[in-house]
Amino acid sequence: MTKIIVATATPEATRRWHTVMQAALPGHEVIAWEPGQSSTGARYAIVWAPPRALFEVETGLEAIFNLGAGVDAILALPDLPDIPVYRLEDAGMAPQMAEYVIHYLSGMSRGFDSYARAQAQSRWAPLPAVRHADWPVGVMGLGKLGMHVARAVQAVGYPVAGWARSAREQTGFDTFHGAEQLPAFLARTRVLVNLLPLTPQTRGIINRSLLEQLRPDAVVINIARGGHVVDADLLAALDSGRVQAAVLDVFNQEPLSPEHPYWQHPRVRITPHVAAMTLEAEAAEQISRRIAQLEAGEPASGRVQRETGY
Amino acid sequence: MTKIIVATATPEATRRWHTVMQAALPGHEVIAWEPGQSSTGARYAIVWAPPRALFEVETGLEAIFNLGAGVDAILALPDLPDIPVYRLEDAGMAPQMAEYVIHYLSGMSRGFDSYARAQAQSRWAPLPAVRHADWPVGVMGLGKLGMHVARAVQAVGYPVAGWARSAREQTGFDTFHGAEQLPAFLARTRVLVNLLPLTPQTRGIINRSLLEQLRPDAVVINIARGGHVVDADLLAALDSGRVQAAVLDVFNQEPLSPEHPYWQHPRVRITPHVAAMTLEAEAAEQISRRIAQLEAGEPASGRVQRETGY
Repeated sequence: MTKIIVATATPEATRRWHTVMQAALPGHEVIAWEPGQSSTGARYAIVWAPPRALFEVETGLEAIFNLGAGVDAILALPDLPDIPVYRLEDAGMAPQMAEYVIHYLSGMSRGFDSYARAQAQSRWAPLPAVRHADWPVGVMGLGKLGMHVARAVQAVGYPVAGWARSAREQTGFDTFHGAEQLPAFLARTRVLVNLLPLTPQTRGIINRSLLEQLRPDAVVINIARGGHVVDADLLAALDSGRVQAAVLDVFNQEPLSPEHPYWQHPRVRITPHVAAMTLEAEAAEQISRRIAQLEAGEPASGRVQRETGY
Repeated sequence: MTKIIVATATPEATRRWHTVMQAALPGHEVIAWEPGQSSTGARYAIVWAPPRALFEVETGLEAIFNLGAGVDAILALPDLPDIPVYRLEDAGMAPQMAEYVIHYLSGMSRGFDSYARAQAQSRWAPLPAVRHADWPVGVMGLGKLGMHVARAVQAVGYPVAGWARSAREQTGFDTFHGAEQLPAFLARTRVLVNLLPLTPQTRGIINRSLLEQLRPDAVVINIARGGHVVDADLLAALDSGRVQAAVLDVFNQEPLSPEHPYWQHPRVRITPHVAAMTLEAEAAEQISRRIAQLEAGEPASGRVQRETGY
């Protein structure tokens, strides 16, 4: 019976995922990681921010399944063995991301935020009709999440374009790719939605140079990783008015320190890394399907390319 | 040269629509209504809440084009001549409605509203992952607007069902129809989105009996007409907690009186009839296309059935 070990950042989450994965893998022995335990002989590891000791102890692993789409943290582990790493490709995250973007974007573009203030004063104050054409949205990163977000934003009326490292075809919206097309993408974008993977190439990509190329009254929505943003540059652009607003779900340090200037900045909306949460049932289905494929000697989807970092 | 008269509730709106429609109908003479003027011999009228005198003076009209989807107001005019009335079928309203529903629904279901309060206290306080299955949405009214809203809400992860007067097929979600299936529809619905036309049959449909059939912690989103709601019944259900929240864009009297209890009710969100605004370019395109069809002796879409009221 194949052994599979579950290891996450906290005992509670490890127990929870152990229960979920055992139910999803009835023909296998699923084991919860405990600090100090000796090797279980596990062939597969299901992890989220696992302790380093996992890879020192479990030397027989043949593959790692990451309980998330972003693998920047696990790829940065110094002791990560040279075996295949698989990431979740969606697991219910895409619709959540789309909902998040539509909520915060429409709060600004449609003036919904201002109606809450008018209501507090019992004041009937309709704004002129919004022209969605005035709010072109640009999605950086066109994986499964970025594609879904772009299409959902397009379906509620916004002009949408996308940018990715390499060319995309038949997306149903304008796409740009590579460093040479980034300026054209930024020049037509007012609302920048970041869904890039965090890699050495994308770290700090949202910096002063990028922000200055956006359309006036720009809005930045970051739902990827805090490491994409140079915080000092974004704060300066917010202070100067070059960027009208930032909606931030992820930060260079999480939890965000209570003293961080983002918290009380009048142009910043903060959420605590909740734009999309991994849905247990869908994560379990993806991982169990891939394990079945590997055991049958077939290739499994979601394998991370170490050289690109996603 | 065919004459077309434009008449709305205010001189400003009449001038604006006159300009828009003249540009869209270059081969026609478009005239702005002015109080006291004698008959222009117009064949068509383009109207929104027009003055009664219009129909007393312009006795040669052959068709009326309403600058909106809802025709309850115009059909209630006592002097309305017995000629075809056409309504806008979408005119950019559907994506706006979808955006509105997703904004207010996600503010509650995903806890986005609560993150704004946490931010004010510089507090990092993620909520548990939402299960969209806990927020089944029911859309009443499955015209073009209702269909679009239902699909958009489904695309961001909510279980969706629809209810309409008559059966619908191949919608991609569960549908119910007629009075006999209304209880089953309400019993599976937590978030009720009203997009019905206002007719003698639907006036007051959101009353105590209906509200008591919804799932606990129900939410009512009304973006159709104020006349669908029995205000006293909705307020009682909000006060008792039977209904958790109401998001209201339309009211029995508009503007809503500053003294109305809705304004300061802690469970009510108010917007001033802005869930969808007619987009000029799309309205002009629909109306000019229909006029061309009528002039060519062809049937035109969007014709209102007087007996059903929509």
